Amino acid sequence: MARRFEFFFDYVSPTAYLAHYLAREVAERTRAELVYRPFFLGGVMQATGNRPPGTVPAKGAYMQRDLQRCAKRVGVPLFMNPYFPMNTRGLTRATLGLDDDPALRDRFIDACFRHCYGIEDGIDPANPADLKTMCDAEGFDFDQIVALSEAPENKDKLRANTDEAVARGVFGAPSFLVGDELFFGHDRLDYVEEALTEQAA
Amino acid sequence: MARRFEFFFDYVSPTAYLAHYLAREVAERTRAELVYRPFFLGGVMQATGNRPPGTVPAKGAYMQRDLQRCAKRVGVPLFMNPYFPMNTRGLTRATLGLDDDPALRDRFIDACFRHCYGIEDGIDPANPADLKTMCDAEGFDFDQIVALSEAPENKDKLRANTDEAVARGVFGAPSFLVGDELFFGHDRLDYVEEALTEQAA
Repeated sequence: MARRFEFFFDYVSPTAYLAHYLAREVAERTRAELVYRPFFLGGVMQATGNRPPGTVPAKGAYMQRDLQRCAKRVGVPLFMNPYFPMNTRGLTRATLGLDDDPALRDRFIDACFRHCYGIEDGIDPANPADLKTMCDAEGFDFDQIVALSEAPENKDKLRANTDEAVARGVFGAPSFLVGDELFFGHDRLDYVEEALTEQAA
Repeated sequence: MARRFEFFFDYVSPTAYLAHYLAREVAERTRAELVYRPFFLGGVMQATGNRPPGTVPAKGAYMQRDLQRCAKRVGVPLFMNPYFPMNTRGLTRATLGLDDDPALRDRFIDACFRHCYGIEDGIDPANPADLKTMCDAEGFDFDQIVALSEAPENKDKLRANTDEAVARGVFGAPSFLVGDELFFGHDRLDYVEEALTEQAA
């Protein structure tokens, strides 16, 4: 059986942004396949009764400090998105629409994360002008991305990923599954790596 | 200025149990003073609007797996306490009452954590028979511990620690403060260590 780990994410999550970089490194080191599973975090929250950390003011304030410390360790810049919590469903649907072209999809995933959290004044993904700016800067076909983000089959795929995540015990993002073993948070990717390494042994 | 870090904890928290071991190691490696700040986690939750992770069923289920993985890495056994969420106020008050005798207090802290989470069938700290069992096994004077746990000045100290924690941004346990810099979770003790090491440089 080929080794693989699934990465459940939504671009709205700043810790998913951090996990994005770490997950690629884990995949490289372990030679396991990184399976992208974009989902709708709001739907997961609603289904599980979970709440974003920012709903507790003291936790929200702490999170900002913690995110900066974690980003420094990951080695990437992190700027809080001015439109947080952004509506990212167009981006996740378009991502799912690119599944047939993994190289293009992976480039798109990377661009989405960077334009949400890796640059100052991150984009509002629900604003067509912002989406166009990103597409132009990164060399994506804006019209194709819009079409994919509106395609009913990609809406269905997003819903299916979200439902599957909840059914498999996911309650937030980023989440990782190695087989049926769930790992939550960018700060558990070393455990993911350990699980993949144990499988290889 | 002497380097120090404050450890805000309540014996009810299984991650505080893990942090207890890691914090002592950090203190040893950095030669910084570990300042014990027992508090009442329930009061912090109420004051901040935070909720225990177990109130979200999927998160509670995951936590059990995650705790076992983390305990394995820390290198200590962890058994979920059958009386969770235990009433630990007697233990925290007694701990505060031992502040004048740091060696005895540190032994008591260690015993409380172990009897709550380090042994199968952990104690119910609110049950005098269980408390006596622990005291007898660990060589503490049961009558003294009970007296300390009921002393009004220790109730005041517990309330003061809890209020101070909230005022300084704490929203859960375990929490660490290096000066005014807050770190939450046993899995942030490497950041605590980094902050202490930077102070020394």
